[in-house]
Amino acid sequence: MTHFTDDSIALHTDLYQINMTKAYWDDDFHNRKAVFEVFFRKLPFGNGYAVFAGLERVIEFVKNFHFSKSDIEYLSELGYEEEFLNYLRDLRFTGTIRSMQEGELAFANEPLLRIEAPLAQAQLLETAILNIVNYQTLIATKANRIKQVVHDEVVMEFGTRRAHELDAAIWGTRAAFIGGFDATSNVRAGKIFGMPVSGTHAHSLVQAYQDDYTAFHKYAESHTDCVFLVDTYDTLKSGVPAAIKVAKELGDKINFKGIRLDSGDMAYLSKKARKMLDEAGFTETKIIASNDLDEYTILNLKAQGAQIDVWGVGTKLITAYDQPALGAVYKLASIENEKGEMEDSIKISSNAEKVSTPGLKKVYRIINKVNHKSEGDYITLEHEDPQHEDRLKMFHPVHTYISKFVTNFEARELHVDVFKNGELVYETPSLQVMREFVNENLELLWDEYKRSMNPEEYPVDLSDECWTNKMSLIQKVKAEVKERFHSAR
Amino acid sequence: MTHFTDDSIALHTDLYQINMTKAYWDDDFHNRKAVFEVFFRKLPFGNGYAVFAGLERVIEFVKNFHFSKSDIEYLSELGYEEEFLNYLRDLRFTGTIRSMQEGELAFANEPLLRIEAPLAQAQLLETAILNIVNYQTLIATKANRIKQVVHDEVVMEFGTRRAHELDAAIWGTRAAFIGGFDATSNVRAGKIFGMPVSGTHAHSLVQAYQDDYTAFHKYAESHTDCVFLVDTYDTLKSGVPAAIKVAKELGDKINFKGIRLDSGDMAYLSKKARKMLDEAGFTETKIIASNDLDEYTILNLKAQGAQIDVWGVGTKLITAYDQPALGAVYKLASIENEKGEMEDSIKISSNAEKVSTPGLKKVYRIINKVNHKSEGDYITLEHEDPQHEDRLKMFHPVHTYISKFVTNFEARELHVDVFKNGELVYETPSLQVMREFVNENLELLWDEYKRSMNPEEYPVDLSDECWTNKMSLIQKVKAEVKERFHSAR
Repeated sequence: MTHFTDDSIALHTDLYQINMTKAYWDDDFHNRKAVFEVFFRKLPFGNGYAVFAGLERVIEFVKNFHFSKSDIEYLSELGYEEEFLNYLRDLRFTGTIRSMQEGELAFANEPLLRIEAPLAQAQLLETAILNIVNYQTLIATKANRIKQVVHDEVVMEFGTRRAHELDAAIWGTRAAFIGGFDATSNVRAGKIFGMPVSGTHAHSLVQAYQDDYTAFHKYAESHTDCVFLVDTYDTLKSGVPAAIKVAKELGDKINFKGIRLDSGDMAYLSKKARKMLDEAGFTETKIIASNDLDEYTILNLKAQGAQIDVWGVGTKLITAYDQPALGAVYKLASIENEKGEMEDSIKISSNAEKVSTPGLKKVYRIINKVNHKSEGDYITLEHEDPQHEDRLKMFHPVHTYISKFVTNFEARELHVDVFKNGELVYETPSLQVMREFVNENLELLWDEYKRSMNPEEYPVDLSDECWTNKMSLIQKVKAEVKERFHSAR
Repeated sequence: MTHFTDDSIALHTDLYQINMTKAYWDDDFHNRKAVFEVFFRKLPFGNGYAVFAGLERVIEFVKNFHFSKSDIEYLSELGYEEEFLNYLRDLRFTGTIRSMQEGELAFANEPLLRIEAPLAQAQLLETAILNIVNYQTLIATKANRIKQVVHDEVVMEFGTRRAHELDAAIWGTRAAFIGGFDATSNVRAGKIFGMPVSGTHAHSLVQAYQDDYTAFHKYAESHTDCVFLVDTYDTLKSGVPAAIKVAKELGDKINFKGIRLDSGDMAYLSKKARKMLDEAGFTETKIIASNDLDEYTILNLKAQGAQIDVWGVGTKLITAYDQPALGAVYKLASIENEKGEMEDSIKISSNAEKVSTPGLKKVYRIINKVNHKSEGDYITLEHEDPQHEDRLKMFHPVHTYISKFVTNFEARELHVDVFKNGELVYETPSLQVMREFVNENLELLWDEYKRSMNPEEYPVDLSDECWTNKMSLIQKVKAEVKERFHSAR
């Protein structure tokens, strides 16, 4: 079979989406209005919240969505007939998307995005949307976990060489920045996203010049801002003394900003190095650490009194090493029937956690006006309006006896309009705004939801109407399955 | 700072590579000839071998390597001066690359690729080469582990939605195909790589038509080849009976190729479903399973006697879930001195495993001509030629007392020429050839190296000359560090 040029990403989808589209199109079912929601069922890393990311890339994908000439040629080779291909050739997205904004805090079982579109269109976007949102949300969340541990210290993303191919390096480091990281080593990411970039030299510089002193001196002759990597041969006997010697010799000609430790016992070496730097008068020179760090090793180093000021995190962040996948799914919530009415849809499963919540829904964060803390998230059906209610009953959707009444609250809707009838109506804010948005959102959460180990479960509740609708649909579907089973015997 | 269009990937590198290049360029050191090698120190997943992949993408990167107008503008904004930028603007790769071919079996501490180039050029390529080779080799290896467990059964890659962004989905599924997978669900991968694509329908089809029977019937009216997903509501009570009913009604009009199970107790359900299919006369209809599978769950299902014929693997493969990073590094092995001679270089570390092997090297697989099995890999210095020796002493590079003499062997060199003085001299074979190459290579290995748990350690030995060279350089560097330390006091 011919190979084609990679000139389009519209086919970045699972084959079953094309085959379902074909079945719908043959049945003239493809333009039925459908609602799909993206949500995950379990928070990653045992964290108490996730940081939503990926919307900018989703927008780019949806906005440019159309099958290229070569896409159509390839599908023709696969055997799809001319008339169906003509339909695909002219296809553009004409639907409506509402979504959380990047930097929003998200929890299990609440819709991150909501796609309302002709059935076939919504299906054709599914795979790419999940591919993007799953990864970027995972990394923004991991980055924020790490940020919670370093507090006000600087933390930089160094993981490109271990990222899963090129896109992950770029979009992963952007997600890390949203989640609270301060800079990236990836120059391309700096170029396209306007992120701060960071980095000085590697071990190979020292190897090329054969000793620390010569290498640092050469670097300092070429750069005003200097961070010297001191562990190529021997950190305390060679690296740190050489760095100090060069800094003394060059004096005001350089900013001796830091030394970097990349191997060995970081707690011990950082304390010794700090002492050497201080005694030489370089009290402002920072110590940077980078060696397979994550929130656990950083916490541990701090507990040991390590004298580290700046953290470089690579592999463990960019691959989300301890949990490299977020399981967000894309489920049908509602679909138009033959009479043109919307009918709610549910996915039943013997695994109770996998049963979806039917209907066109909204998500609100219920903020207590007295203490300015969130009481939980509140999912309603589309027509409900908790913003104009005085008193809200919030109850656990499984253990319903856990309930409370909330008054004097603000109900902040978490979704914004992104596409309206195919038209992009959302302007992506700057990454800086997204970063600050994360912090504003975290301010609303009690500390119990924010600790990195065993956080309390943040309430994500269904409105009474939404819950009742779900329960009655479960009963209805179960009865139908039973009836079909009996009639089939 | 201005954002720039993503019109080039030359800046897909760590900032320190640019800053080292600057220091070298200022010192007129940038054109010193240097040799770097790519290798990993530890095999992933506890496997006995890795399957090398990524070369095609590396070639694409190196061949097109040059800084675009916008790259230069961005670097200018970062503060690099005009003259240095002029140097970068004209830069093209002029070096030589030798590499293993995709599908080669690779082991710890042997060079996968060898880059000989002017120092600055070699540095500027490092990050992208590692980013590509680390991921693709990881996935090809994971795929082959899974292939070893499914044997001759069909195994398909379904992981796009959980891949780390778009590139990982595409290049990951290609790597899986090299490693032994049979098809992909990703249509774009099928299009650009000519891989077989696979997939029929999702749960949403059943939800859209509200019951299994209607959904399967609609699908069958539109497609001749049918695989029905049977677990949307109830696998045995609704899904399988509906699939059988549709197949009976449509008879020869469709190929009832299979049913797919995506949840529940796979061992139990597959056995029950097999019985139902057989009793209905559909003995050729396959059972396909897909639900967070990997080599461990597949082995376990087989041990339970599960009646599964085709395996769909997603998340666990495409993210290399149990070990999502391969730690391949890029180390300086040799560099030109001021007299124009090449001088070997070593990276010392207090961690013995992290000490690199100096010098320009070759790797051979030593194949016993009697039993056609490999005796191990044998790393030599460039000028050595084991192909013309009668008797080879092979010894463990750390535990040197473990040694053997080999006679009547073929020494097959593992590297091929890829770039020669900047010119591409390698033609990438088809993916089919790479897949077969993996199997040919595996034929050479004793079973003890191939088992998925606790395999024997395959010998990767250094020639006597290569080993002696390493030991003397370690001594030399240690003495120099000691001397500098004393003179600095």
